Formats: sequence, structure tokens, C-alpha cells
Amino acid sequence: MDLNADLAEGFGRWEMGDDEALLGLVTSANVACGFHAGDAAVIRSAVDQAAKRGVAVGAQVGYRDLAGFGRRFIDVEPRELTDDVIYQIGALAAFARVVGTEVRYVKPHGALYNAIVHHAEQAAAVVEAVRDYDPSLAVLGLPGSQWLAQAERAGLRTFREAFADRAYTPEATLVSRRERGAVLHDAEEIAERCLRLAAGEPIRAIDGSEIQVHADSICLHGDSPDAVAIARTVRNRLTEAGVELRAFATGEG
Amino acid sequence: MDLNADLAEGFGRWEMGDDEALLGLVTSANVACGFHAGDAAVIRSAVDQAAKRGVAVGAQVGYRDLAGFGRRFIDVEPRELTDDVIYQIGALAAFARVVGTEVRYVKPHGALYNAIVHHAEQAAAVVEAVRDYDPSLAVLGLPGSQWLAQAERAGLRTFREAFADRAYTPEATLVSRRERGAVLHDAEEIAERCLRLAAGEPIRAIDGSEIQVHADSICLHGDSPDAVAIARTVRNRLTEAGVELRAFATGEG
Amino acid sequence: MDLNADLAEGFGRWEMGDDEALLGLVTSANVACGFHAGDAAVIRSAVDQAAKRGVAVGAQVGYRDLAGFGRRFIDVEPRELTDDVIYQIGALAAFARVVGTEVRYVKPHGALYNAIVHHAEQAAAVVEAVRDYDPSLAVLGLPGSQWLAQAERAGLRTFREAFADRAYTPEATLVSRRERGAVLHDAEEIAERCLRLAAGEPIRAIDGSEIQVHADSICLHGDSPDAVAIARTVRNRLTEAGVELRAFATGEG
Amino acid sequence: MDLNADLAEGFGRWEMGDDEALLGLVTSANVACGFHAGDAAVIRSAVDQAAKRGVAVGAQVGYRDLAGFGRRFIDVEPRELTDDVIYQIGALAAFARVVGTEVRYVKPHGALYNAIVHHAEQAAAVVEAVRDYDPSLAVLGLPGSQWLAQAERAGLRTFREAFADRAYTPEATLVSRRERGAVLHDAEEIAERCLRLAAGEPIRAIDGSEIQVHADSICLHGDSPDAVAIARTVRNRLTEAGVELRAFATGEG
Repeated sequence: MDLNADLAEGFGRWEMGDDEALLGLVTSANVACGFHAGDAAVIRSAVDQAAKRGVAVGAQVGYRDLAGFGRRFIDVEPRELTDDVIYQIGALAAFARVVGTEVRYVKPHGALYNAIVHHAEQAAAVVEAVRDYDPSLAVLGLPGSQWLAQAERAGLRTFREAFADRAYTPEATLVSRRERGAVLHDAEEIAERCLRLAAGEPIRAIDGSEIQVHADSICLHGDSPDAVAIARTVRNRLTEAGVELRAFATGEG
Repeated sequence: MDLNADLAEGFGRWEMGDDEALLGLVTSANVACGFHAGDAAVIRSAVDQAAKRGVAVGAQVGYRDLAGFGRRFIDVEPRELTDDVIYQIGALAAFARVVGTEVRYVKPHGALYNAIVHHAEQAAAVVEAVRDYDPSLAVLGLPGSQWLAQAERAGLRTFREAFADRAYTPEATLVSRRERGAVLHDAEEIAERCLRLAAGEPIRAIDGSEIQVHADSICLHGDSPDAVAIARTVRNRLTEAGVELRAFATGEG
Repeated sequence: MDLNADLAEGFGRWEMGDDEALLGLVTSANVACGFHAGDAAVIRSAVDQAAKRGVAVGAQVGYRDLAGFGRRFIDVEPRELTDDVIYQIGALAAFARVVGTEVRYVKPHGALYNAIVHHAEQAAAVVEAVRDYDPSLAVLGLPGSQWLAQAERAGLRTFREAFADRAYTPEATLVSRRERGAVLHDAEEIAERCLRLAAGEPIRAIDGSEIQVHADSICLHGDSPDAVAIARTVRNRLTEAGVELRAFATGEG
Repeated sequence: MDLNADLAEGFGRWEMGDDEALLGLVTSANVACGFHAGDAAVIRSAVDQAAKRGVAVGAQVGYRDLAGFGRRFIDVEPRELTDDVIYQIGALAAFARVVGTEVRYVKPHGALYNAIVHHAEQAAAVVEAVRDYDPSLAVLGLPGSQWLAQAERAGLRTFREAFADRAYTPEATLVSRRERGAVLHDAEEIAERCLRLAAGEPIRAIDGSEIQVHADSICLHGDSPDAVAIARTVRNRLTEAGVELRAFATGEG
């Protein structure tokens, strides 16, 4: 199983999350690329530490929206979105090259992530960016999303992720953050769920029913106050249970 | 002889210069990388056309200052400047990759160009960025600058440029734009000077004295009203005189 | 009748439109406020000239999106949108104060203008900004829009505008720019239509049928190549016909 | 005596300092205006709380440099700097108006603050902005600075500030942050110094000598980990000693 988290989400003097601690716990790092967060210095630092720890580097691409942290849908033209994504992957790839590693995968961020679950044109635009830039890159996303479906049709290597701390509907989609109970906070409960995901066992939806969620990677959130403690609990429980943790996206392309 | 010009200096809906016309005239394109000008779409378009016409692509890196078009000195920390330059080269390299070419050289822009004539720390920072990213990249700059001197010491391939339309002092430095006569406007006079530069002959300084300026490339400015007409005159006069025009930075690194 | 146009839409070294020429032709200036276009210097210059010519100054508020020129819908939280609009009005008001005039009205720009035709929450957010900042400000917009309807309910002074160069549907809404014939280019045809609008006579929809469009102001576009020539033709035809041109928004609040 | 601190220095989702706690301790709030920090929402929140607590609102104007948090000198043209400062004051003034208070003073931030200690042209540019916008505004700065000297000559009301936690040279200037001992960390020592400043008594320079520092306001830094604890200690010690705390800049102009 793979554990992924968002990194390099500071900007200038503003910090976000504890990159150093998380990089000791995850196997894949979704590194912000400067459009919604991540100045050059914080990107380099995250990529450098990821390389040293053997953590796979992914491009966490987003809308151009620092003021909104990439969390607001922008109705950008698909053609421009393709170019914006290529730009971001390239900027990140420069640091990967400098520290002796490579960008292995692409995972859209925030509102873009949510938009391309359903927004076919924007999903296609991001797929096109990956294919144009390097069709050997892996892509990570939500099972059932336009993003993964179109990436698969385009011949890209697709990987599915589950969310450790998000409640699921009985239909195996995410409960909206606006609803009560949408986010889990108990580290033990979250870790228990991760064990089930790793074992391929059903997990419990918000209504108590059992659902099957297929995951190649589990997303741990990095910006909550307890983020590091929860990540540590998850990692410990998984390794104690004998689950092998390793990056889903290897370099063999 | 090589002819270079600044390209991709628009941003969003704002345009600057006539990229298409200039790309038919120059042999090297200094492509803006998004920090002082150049959104992803205009960068892609310029790189795409450059590749199709066999024009060499260079990274025109600058300070992060859209409002100032990179024309204001910023006292950025050298370490941050290094990272900002790497970021910009990488973003440009992504589009070069997509269209099937490569970034061949680095030429700083505007206030950064001027600063690193003398500012040893910032010059070192840009040199370090090139060396970190790809020591086979060529660098283009002003003869006698810290930038070229330090790049040479660092083992980078350095190339000197002269300015077709800028007046020179008797000491072969540029006359400040604030002084009268700093910019030449007559296409024939500019072309005549380019012929002399290409032949290795002395040119005339602002006081009428003759000075020797060694140039591997001649910079044509792209954003003046007559830019394209002047560039065309220069190119025609050089080719009529049998001067071979080709990019100074080839891929053999 | 009032003639309004968008001004101060450059940014830094990038120019857009011919502010000086337009300010000699219109009676109301929609001045960009820095979020989608308009740096402080170009804003000051536009406001200064407007004051000298007796042209009314309005706040052309937009989404925070320089790269998209405010032409992309952004799903910003209404509460944040209210604050963003207040910020923009205040910035513009500072220059109005400096040159001895006042902001008289608010006209949203681009994608925000289009969004609040139907988007009730964003319309309410902009209305709230105006009411919070100064309920004596006039608001300008599309007849039938949420923006005008909610502004009226909030007790604001509302004014309706028609578009000189846009085709109308038989239902008196604007034909989408994506459709053929959406924009008129013939200066005489545009001027003729403006005469009819000024006289309160019906104009012709795209299908040839006659429609009644009530307008307190006519919007002239400033960024097309023929913008100034068309504006001049319109103004001349209206004044020749004895139509009095004056700002819809006077200072009496 | 007045206590001032920097506020509203977050941006979007990024936070900086504890505005709410500091607003319970200071008498003057230097509110960031959006160019180096401070989005519209955080500005409004800070101004709103300041108004409710009777804390005077000042415009903390800076260079346009979010990535550098306004801490890098930018060689901006004085004329543009004037306009940038007017823009920022106006944006802040809008929120002051909305919550029923007024901007009372201007205090430049970061690198601009440091630059205009000596940089006569930029100092003049900021002075001109204040005079153009509202000559009744107070200005706060370092004794002996170009900024205060020129403001005084321009007829503005000037106020001097001392730094609670910065070491002074024997010449009563600030010890550079690059030198050891430049910043004091002990709350009791800082509070003791504030008592001396409030009493008009000499304080101790870094070499142990006594120096006289005249202060109308004491600056408390808001972004260090112990900022709130130190501010509380200072306030308590001053009030226990019978020092009356009140804003230096009242509305009578």
C-alpha cells in the first residue's frame, strides 16, 4: 500500500503543514507546484527531502489561484488549463532533476481535483497535459472520476486513491465537507480503516453500511492540527500488521 | 552570427511584440518564463513556432515581478534567486519537451540582466541555478559582466552579445537609457553596425571613437514600434553580405 | 443618454485600449481596480483625466484573476467576494479623492458581470459590498439581472445599460459571443442603434424582430481595434441628433 | 504611551500571528494592505476587531511582493511607489469606513520601512502619497529617518517609534538582524525596557552604554512564537506602573 500527502504548500514566509515530519511517514509526496501554493524554495526543499528518503514525487497541480489556495473552481478554458498544468509539471521536474530524482505522477489539487471528477472538458485538458508532457507518468485520482476514466482511455497508467479521514456515502463517493461527519478525527478509527483498505476489505460508509473501496494509495491530509499524529498512527498500524508500504508510482513507466 | 530577441512577453490578454514576425527573423529566441512576463499559453506558442522554424530556445529568466515587467531591481536572497531561476527554466523546458526541442541557453532579463553585470552574489546565484539544472546549457550575456565571468569559472559555455540599437560608451559599455542618444532608431544605421559586428570590425561609440565589441550574438529589441522592420533590415543586410546566420547555442552541449 | 466604456485595463508595461481618446468621448468611465487589470499608475491616470473632463468615475470590479483578465468564472465564496469588491472600490476611491472627484457607481466586469446575471449568491455578495461601503453609490448592469434586481431590493439606485455592439436575442438578452453575428462591427449600424436606444425606440434583434431595450447608459467597448472610431461615430451621431450626453450617475446620491 | 503591532499579515488560507490576541493588547494596529500580505477578508476582520476594541487603525503599506512578504528592497520608481501607497491606503480605508472607523496613520512595512530610513527618493514618494491622499494622517517611523524628516517638512504629523525587542547601537540605531544579539527574547527584559521608554529614561545599548531613545509608540512584533506572551507582559508591566496606554494617532488630525 502507498500513503500519499500534500506537501510544499507554504508560500514565501507563510507555512502550511509539517513537511519534514510527513516525509518520514508517507511513500508518495504530492508536491505543490506554485500556482495555488509552493514557492520555488519550499518546492526544492520538499523534493530534496523526498529524494533523500526515497519518497516518490508527484506533481500536485492546481488552478492559478494563490488567494484561494486552489480551492475555488475556475472556469478556465481547457486549452489554457492544459498549458498551465504542463508549466507546473515542468517547474517541479526541474527540482526533481536538480536533486537527482524524477516526477513520477500527477495528482490534481483542491477545486481542480473536485472539478475533474465530473467536468469532462477540464478532465480531458489535464489528461492531455500529462500525455503531452510525458505519457509514462502515472496519474492518481478518485475511482469513477472522469479524470481516471479519460486517463485510462488515453493510455496513461492510472491509480486509485482512498481518503483515510473522509466519510463515504453508501455509493462509495465522498460525503461533502459541508455535511456533519464528513471528516474523521479519531486516529485509531482512521488507522483501522486504512488496515481494511490495505487488506482489500470493505469499509463502513457514513450510514453504517459496508462498501468496497479499491485503493492503490491512501491520502493522508497534511494541514490539520493532528495531521502528523494521525499519519504516524496509520503508518505504525499498517507496518505492525505487516502491510508493505511503498510508492505506487515507480520509475519503470 | 546569431540574432536574438525577447519573445513570449505577453501575459493573459495583454500582448507585447510580434512573436510570429520576429521568429521568422532571429536565430535565437529568449523566451520569457512567467515571472516577469509570459503565461503558459504564450510560452507554448512561442516555443512551438521556434521549434518549427529551427530557432534556438533560451530561457529569459527574471525577477518575480509582473507589475514591474522584471525591470526593477529586487534584492532577493541569492539562495531564493537560484531556486526562482531553476523553477523558470524547468517551466520553459516542459514546453520545449512537448514540442520536441530543448532549452539551449539562459539569458537573464531586464533588471536581473543589469544587476548581474556587477552584483557578484546574484550573478553567482544565477550561475548556480544553471549549473544545478544542467551544466551543458549555454549562457548569454554582456562581455565583462560578473555573470559571464562567474559562468566561465563555473565551467559553463559562455557567449557574448552586443546590442544592435544601443549606444556604447568609449569604454564599450552601454550608455544608460536615461541619457540622450542611448537608443538608435535608424534601421540602416543599426544594420550597418551589425555588419561591422559580424565582420569583427570596430563600431563607433557615442563620442565618435572606435571601439572593439566582441559578439557571438546580436540582440534585437522586440517591443519597440519598429522592432520588426529593424529586425528585417538587419537580417536582410547581413544575409546579402553573406553573413551566415545561425544559433550560437547548438545542442551538442 | 450616457455612454460608458471600460478604462485603465492595462497592467504595468502592458497596455489595453486608448484611455485618452475614449475619455474624450464617453460620459462614464468604468475604471478597472487592480484585480483583473489596472495597476495603480494606470488607474490614477484614468481617474485624473476623467476628473478633468467631467467624466463620471465608476468602479469596474472583477474577480482576482490577472492571468484571465477577469473573464473566467471563479466560484469564490460570497463573503470573500463582498470583501474583494469593497477592497477594489476603496482602492479606486483613493485616487478619486486625490484628484478631487468621487466614485459614482459600480459596474462589475467580465465573468463577474456575466455570473451575477443569474448567480443569486454572488449577486447578493456584490450588492452587499456596495451597501456596506456606500449605499448612495449607483449600480449599473443588465436589465433583468439578479444584480439589478437585488440591488433594487436593497435600496440602491440602479441603472440599466444596453450594448452598442452586441447582438440581442428576440427575448432581449445578449447573443453569446460564441455564436456567429454576436458582435456588430459596422460603426454606422452601431450608431443607428444607439440613436434608437436614446429615443426609446425598439431595436432589431438578431432574427430581425423588433425588441424594446430600456437603457440609462450605452456600453461602448474599448479594446477592439476600431473602438475609438466607433465611439466617435456614436457620439457624433447622437449629438448631431440633439441627444444630450451626460453621466447617469451624478453626485447627489 | 502607545503600543503598535503588525496585523492582518495572513493571506488566503495562510495565517500569520494571532491578530485577535494582539488586538486585546495594543493601542495601534498596523494593518497590512494586500501588497505584501493581507487579503481582503483578513484585513476586514482585523479592522473590524480593532474598531470594536478602540484600537487605532494604521496603514502598513509595503512593496508589491507577496512572495517576499515585502522584505526585499525593490527599486521601484518613486512615482509608481506613490501610486502603490495611495492604492493600499484606499483599500484599507474602505474597510475602516465599512466598520465605522478611520485610517489614522501610515507605517511602512519591512524593506520599504528600512529603505526610507536613507533612500530619499522613496521616502519622498511615500510622503507624497500621504499628502496627496490625506495630509491629516499621522505617520509613524524611526527617529532620524528620511521618512520622518521629509514628512515633517511636508507638514505631516510625525510620530517616533522604538522597538521593544531590538538591540540598539550606541548611536541609537538598530543593530542589524544579521548580528548576534540583534533581537531580545526575554519578556521581562523587554518589558523593563518599555518601562524606561515610557518614562523617558535612557535604555541600554548593545555595548552596555546608555542611550536616549524618544518614542511616541513602541513596536511589538507579532509574528514570533512568543509574540503574544511578550506583548502581554509588556502591557501588564506598563499598566501596573501607571503608564497610560493610548493611541498616538487620534482622529482630530
